[in-house]
Amino acid sequence: MKNEKLNHSCSHLLAAAVLELWPDVLPTLGPAIENGFYYDFDFGNKKVSDDDLQIIEDKMHEISLTWTNFEREEIEPKKAQEIYKNNPYKLELIAEHSGEGETITIYKSGNFSDLCRGGHIDPSLIPIKYFKLLSLAGAYWRGSEKNRMLTRIYGTCWSSQKELDSHLTMIEESKKRDHRTIGKDLNLFVFSDLVGKGLPLLTPKGATIRRELERFVVDEELKRGYQHVLTPPLAKTDLYKTSGHYPYYKDTMYPVMKIDDEELILRPMTCPHHFMLYKSSLHSYKELPLRYAELSPQYRYEKSGELTGLMRVRMFTLADAHIFATKEQAKQVISEVLDLIQDVNSIFGMTKGQDYRYRLSLGDRSDSKKFYKDDAAWEYAEDVLRNVLTERAEPFFDGLGEAAFYGPKIDVQVKKANGHEETAFTVQYDFVMPTRFDLKFIDADGKESQPIVIHRSSIGAFERTMAFLIEKFAGAFPTWLSPIQVKVLPISEKHQQYAMEIVTKLRSAGIRTELDDRNESLNSKIRDAQMEKIPYMLILGEKEMTAQTVMQRGRNGKQSGPFSLEEFISNIKKEIDDKLIV
Amino acid sequence: MKNEKLNHSCSHLLAAAVLELWPDVLPTLGPAIENGFYYDFDFGNKKVSDDDLQIIEDKMHEISLTWTNFEREEIEPKKAQEIYKNNPYKLELIAEHSGEGETITIYKSGNFSDLCRGGHIDPSLIPIKYFKLLSLAGAYWRGSEKNRMLTRIYGTCWSSQKELDSHLTMIEESKKRDHRTIGKDLNLFVFSDLVGKGLPLLTPKGATIRRELERFVVDEELKRGYQHVLTPPLAKTDLYKTSGHYPYYKDTMYPVMKIDDEELILRPMTCPHHFMLYKSSLHSYKELPLRYAELSPQYRYEKSGELTGLMRVRMFTLADAHIFATKEQAKQVISEVLDLIQDVNSIFGMTKGQDYRYRLSLGDRSDSKKFYKDDAAWEYAEDVLRNVLTERAEPFFDGLGEAAFYGPKIDVQVKKANGHEETAFTVQYDFVMPTRFDLKFIDADGKESQPIVIHRSSIGAFERTMAFLIEKFAGAFPTWLSPIQVKVLPISEKHQQYAMEIVTKLRSAGIRTELDDRNESLNSKIRDAQMEKIPYMLILGEKEMTAQTVMQRGRNGKQSGPFSLEEFISNIKKEIDDKLIV
Repeated sequence: MKNEKLNHSCSHLLAAAVLELWPDVLPTLGPAIENGFYYDFDFGNKKVSDDDLQIIEDKMHEISLTWTNFEREEIEPKKAQEIYKNNPYKLELIAEHSGEGETITIYKSGNFSDLCRGGHIDPSLIPIKYFKLLSLAGAYWRGSEKNRMLTRIYGTCWSSQKELDSHLTMIEESKKRDHRTIGKDLNLFVFSDLVGKGLPLLTPKGATIRRELERFVVDEELKRGYQHVLTPPLAKTDLYKTSGHYPYYKDTMYPVMKIDDEELILRPMTCPHHFMLYKSSLHSYKELPLRYAELSPQYRYEKSGELTGLMRVRMFTLADAHIFATKEQAKQVISEVLDLIQDVNSIFGMTKGQDYRYRLSLGDRSDSKKFYKDDAAWEYAEDVLRNVLTERAEPFFDGLGEAAFYGPKIDVQVKKANGHEETAFTVQYDFVMPTRFDLKFIDADGKESQPIVIHRSSIGAFERTMAFLIEKFAGAFPTWLSPIQVKVLPISEKHQQYAMEIVTKLRSAGIRTELDDRNESLNSKIRDAQMEKIPYMLILGEKEMTAQTVMQRGRNGKQSGPFSLEEFISNIKKEIDDKLIV
Repeated sequence: MKNEKLNHSCSHLLAAAVLELWPDVLPTLGPAIENGFYYDFDFGNKKVSDDDLQIIEDKMHEISLTWTNFEREEIEPKKAQEIYKNNPYKLELIAEHSGEGETITIYKSGNFSDLCRGGHIDPSLIPIKYFKLLSLAGAYWRGSEKNRMLTRIYGTCWSSQKELDSHLTMIEESKKRDHRTIGKDLNLFVFSDLVGKGLPLLTPKGATIRRELERFVVDEELKRGYQHVLTPPLAKTDLYKTSGHYPYYKDTMYPVMKIDDEELILRPMTCPHHFMLYKSSLHSYKELPLRYAELSPQYRYEKSGELTGLMRVRMFTLADAHIFATKEQAKQVISEVLDLIQDVNSIFGMTKGQDYRYRLSLGDRSDSKKFYKDDAAWEYAEDVLRNVLTERAEPFFDGLGEAAFYGPKIDVQVKKANGHEETAFTVQYDFVMPTRFDLKFIDADGKESQPIVIHRSSIGAFERTMAFLIEKFAGAFPTWLSPIQVKVLPISEKHQQYAMEIVTKLRSAGIRTELDDRNESLNSKIRDAQMEKIPYMLILGEKEMTAQTVMQRGRNGKQSGPFSLEEFISNIKKEIDDKLIV
């Protein structure tokens, strides 16, 4: 992590300031995180609010001037226990560290000292000066809901004012792009207490984006030889016991439902369903590679604290597929999958190497608990994946021990609006399930043989993709994805009739159109359409009505025209059909 | 029911024959059903098989000659108990009837008498002669899985040989059209023991039909002003308690799933989800009628004995919608719904009045347990529905007491391949839920007002629609719905290359095409394509290759051409786009 030591040092400064202001507060832990730090405090009965952040920050600046070093001191556990006798959190940490035989260390700067394993800058060389406290949040002690809720203060620290400013601008920008905010402003999705946590409801506008995405994925996959299927989003637990998923996933699966003599469970993945479909008939080598795809609803229990808008939900629909192939076909199949992923990503305006890259997630031969034991199969599969990536000259890095239990995978690592990199979805090589499910095909010699399976997505979960696209485009979607593509703005009531004719023609051309017939000024109509990020406004006044034309205004403010309606339709249709980003 | 008395009389004859053949068998009940009858027996240890049906039938013919009447005798419960002292089933019936103060009657013909409430023909006038035993099935005593499994023998009886023959032909025909048989033959869907009962898996072919149907419905609805939304197929039980559905549906709902502090349940209907979405923002009268539509997955527990292929499943997707409107708009809204239903039905080749008609399902003012109490609202709503049907001169009949608990409805009654009429789906007028959910809109005077809600489907559940269409077309779907639309048949290996070019061109024109490049004779290729009910074969030999043409053969055997490929594509595209039935 960049600036890790500086940020961690700044967390000490934060704790020092808090304790000087409120000596009864109990400090707990204060690590550096990506681009910042936090410190968790038990504030007792004191209610701390956003207003306090400035007070704390001022105190930090004051104290900072007095700090010249971080002085390390090794102490006996006994002594540490004595120092922190009123702080149960630190006592818990001391007990753990001393139990593990570690040396207990304390770091002291100015009047403040903290139990700490180290990792600081030298304040005489690098001043702890360019920082900002960002926010307050609740956080359970050690992340467990069973423990007391602490107060977490987030901050960020840099080595120059310029770096700090640029980071703060980035945060502001990414807040504006937060899909939860934009989703609310543009009325794309809502949550309901009566429906349940992590279960978004898509409004007509949100559902339009979803439908466009779904049809795009399905059509694109069909073109590339995938066969879409439709399987039920639940199954008997026996199915997941057969697949071997059950022990790995049961904590994140929904509860079992008993129906008559069956135990049913909502599915956390599609693979076993596709295997059952594959097994329902005989297959010849001539059919391979056989590609089953599905828009697959899946259910996973996420802790309520981790639920985040559309990004992290309890039910999602994955653009899923399982490709049954011979070992020899694997390389070609995976290469075609990467083609698909890259073509789709470029439609979304994402540049390879910049907006996303790959992680080659490998197994760990020494961990046969986490990874199925079959060294030769792992070697073969990892070679296939590495060769595909290398030969195609893809940007990738290795992730040791990041594989699935049944084989290595290629993860698509996407950079989000807030700068963080995240695994969007994966391409997996599976040599375990085919054995577990006894999958077969008849080879060219008429004998039974076993296929391998490539598990893959093309765009990941639709919910996440939507969240990602909302943030990427800050709600100003490419026209093909825009819930409303054109808004027709008659200048006054006299042009209403003409406007309605235009609306009817646009709609029958399949263009999603709205009419703004409110009794408002043109300027306020334009402002509202711009707020809604509608790609095109058609402004209709006297001149346009007489000449039977339309005046076009983009959401970027660019005005053009007059055009005949036919010309406008032909232009926008091309933009939609070609899925252009303009 | 037609021939009800004759069929019931024949069930006596069946029981007489069985008891004469196997005196230890215990007879239970033998009612008439539509176009036939059955009788349930406890055969004890005797294994009865299809081979026995002929033996029983012969015995029935023998006995029938001796029957001249059904002699009614009233007897004391005590005496009845004495007669049936070894038959616990009859004893249960006797106890019930005498408990309800009914007279116990016995009907005697020849040497056979049976506990019976009557309803027979006079065998001296109408001979019980033109009958046929159809099948054996297991059936629980009184339909409950907790009871003993009995053996049910089905039969049918008519007043002439001609009628019997024509009925048997119809049965044969409908067996051939049974969607389960065709579904297997054409590989459209499968079931899996590991997945669970009543949960079909659609193969690529089945999923293609489903996708075409879904896109057709969505596009058609969007054109008519519906707004598609997407809501989660589960919710907290609280939602169904608020809606008032819970007490009515809880026995057919899936079990509750506890997640943290939430009790979740898979939804048995969409209404409350759409209400929550409606409530998530303010609505003006200008937005009404507001039409929320969804392809909505729903879960209902059906008894395992009632599960039937795609016709009766435990999870289905309903083409659902809820229209929020003013009372005054209701009539117009419902009329537009009927337009949609009729347009869709005509695309499926269904003629109104012949293949389907409407049932006006009314409430019952005297039953306030089953129907929400608000006489004025019922009167108003029923009038609206009746007026729409009458003014449009629709074929309909009344169904007293068939309404939903929250209002009257129009049921779409469809005639199935086996001649039975069934409710395919409904259009409901709801004045109860808007109050329960406190739905509002701002009226023209700026005041809060309550909308009514029209619940409706456009084609019902996709699973059922598919089952219905499979049976209607006996698998020979219209081209737009056919999983494979064209099969290309090169006459010999020399024409393979040309065939592949044709396949590529057809596919890039968006036509679902397969190549039969097996080393088989043309005749056997044609036979196989015909078995698969593929609309068009393109036969390519020397002549076609030289002239760069194609020879077309329909699945009906009609050959035409030669055509240029462009001409063929343009013809078939028109057929597909216009959704023609040819």
